[in-house]
Amino acid sequence: MQSPTLSLGAGPDAVRAAIRSGEWTTQTSGLAPGYTQANLVILPRELAYDFLLFCVRNPKPCPIIDVTDVGSPVPQQAAPGADLRNDLPRYRVYEYGELVEEPTDILHRWRDDMVAFLLGCSFTFEHALVEAGVPLRHLECGTGVPMWITNRACVPAGAFSGPLVVSMRPIREDQVDRASDISARYARAHGAPVHAGDPAALGITDLAIPDWGDPTEVRDGEIPVFWACGVTPQAVALQSKPPLFITHSPGHMFVTDVPIGQLV
Amino acid sequence: MQSPTLSLGAGPDAVRAAIRSGEWTTQTSGLAPGYTQANLVILPRELAYDFLLFCVRNPKPCPIIDVTDVGSPVPQQAAPGADLRNDLPRYRVYEYGELVEEPTDILHRWRDDMVAFLLGCSFTFEHALVEAGVPLRHLECGTGVPMWITNRACVPAGAFSGPLVVSMRPIREDQVDRASDISARYARAHGAPVHAGDPAALGITDLAIPDWGDPTEVRDGEIPVFWACGVTPQAVALQSKPPLFITHSPGHMFVTDVPIGQLV
Repeated sequence: MQSPTLSLGAGPDAVRAAIRSGEWTTQTSGLAPGYTQANLVILPRELAYDFLLFCVRNPKPCPIIDVTDVGSPVPQQAAPGADLRNDLPRYRVYEYGELVEEPTDILHRWRDDMVAFLLGCSFTFEHALVEAGVPLRHLECGTGVPMWITNRACVPAGAFSGPLVVSMRPIREDQVDRASDISARYARAHGAPVHAGDPAALGITDLAIPDWGDPTEVRDGEIPVFWACGVTPQAVALQSKPPLFITHSPGHMFVTDVPIGQLV
Repeated sequence: MQSPTLSLGAGPDAVRAAIRSGEWTTQTSGLAPGYTQANLVILPRELAYDFLLFCVRNPKPCPIIDVTDVGSPVPQQAAPGADLRNDLPRYRVYEYGELVEEPTDILHRWRDDMVAFLLGCSFTFEHALVEAGVPLRHLECGTGVPMWITNRACVPAGAFSGPLVVSMRPIREDQVDRASDISARYARAHGAPVHAGDPAALGITDLAIPDWGDPTEVRDGEIPVFWACGVTPQAVALQSKPPLFITHSPGHMFVTDVPIGQLV
């Protein structure tokens, strides 16, 4: 249900206001063009040190955009006027690792010991790739980018360990270097690819069967290119089965005040 | 007392072995050329989350190179064969914010709840500047780089807050852009300058009186250029007066296995 009052050129403030009021309830792709969108992970304070350290040790899958003070839902660096409890269109709430609800706000779930993490999102470099004339098939097809669990381990930190998750985009052979160079500029949005070419090098046996998202055809003259994926930190954090754990719902990201250029 | 057995071209392993055995007890500037040196901060686990978050929120003064697991003195990412308890030539031990000793190892001080942080050091970009033909007066004069407390506040995190500390290097007017561009490449060694020009913009009233280090003359045709300084995190951490807090002794840094080029 897209609101007719939210123009495509609306800025982050207007977008978040429309989400907060319930006018905008769907995915955020393409909203507030030019501004960084972010993945959300909310954990209790007792797990926050290990999770923060996990992100620091694994900056490619887990680039940190902002971390709130304990008990505060306000991301002071990324959007000081926002409230992470109701400024995303849809959330996922997990109890002991089980998905229990997908509400449009989490005011009823917030606790004084919560810490919210905003992590970089591939929307940022995808936008830059398309602007630079590198077409992305999953965007053209309107399908979800395909993702796989790889055979590469993340660097563990305390309670958190697990494999790197990657997303794949087919890139025309003569554009692979260009796509790599452009995405490398966005260190806080997964940066350069982790691999280009043979999926088996990452332990991926079948490009037709992703672990998440939709299969995306790799055509003649194209190379499958793999980037570290923002699903990694969520998948890893969920393994610890905390009593309460909250994320955004896939595609329903947080729109920050941070211009994409500033994220370089 | 420099050991005759430690050649100038010795690699990080040989340098650390000479330090560990007590053969090398002086400053580390110029040792293991091409490899990153790091500031050391050791804090108890109960302060580690706030300190890690402080570093994440203030990446220019506090660029993170590595963080050990709780109770482990081994920096797995930066030098997996090293032991931070005796691989630096000299340490400073503080109790409740007071300097109580400057030993050559801290084996007697280590505890199971300790976390060690390695933070980027200006040696890295200074090396790159000199290589690129940008002379640095304090190196030529063999004096300490001058440092000041500024009027800019760091972003606070929990128990930690305080002002940004900067170092100053006079740069010839026509080389300021070049110096800025080169240091900007080393985001994990303080990155680009925070200011070039009028010291008053940072609240610095007298370039002849630094808060630490030695005064350095700014000559006609030169601009004072200010970089975020690795003293910031130590000064800020000490404000919290933890029961036990350990750092390297100034200039007596940790030599990592990380090639300078890899720190970009």
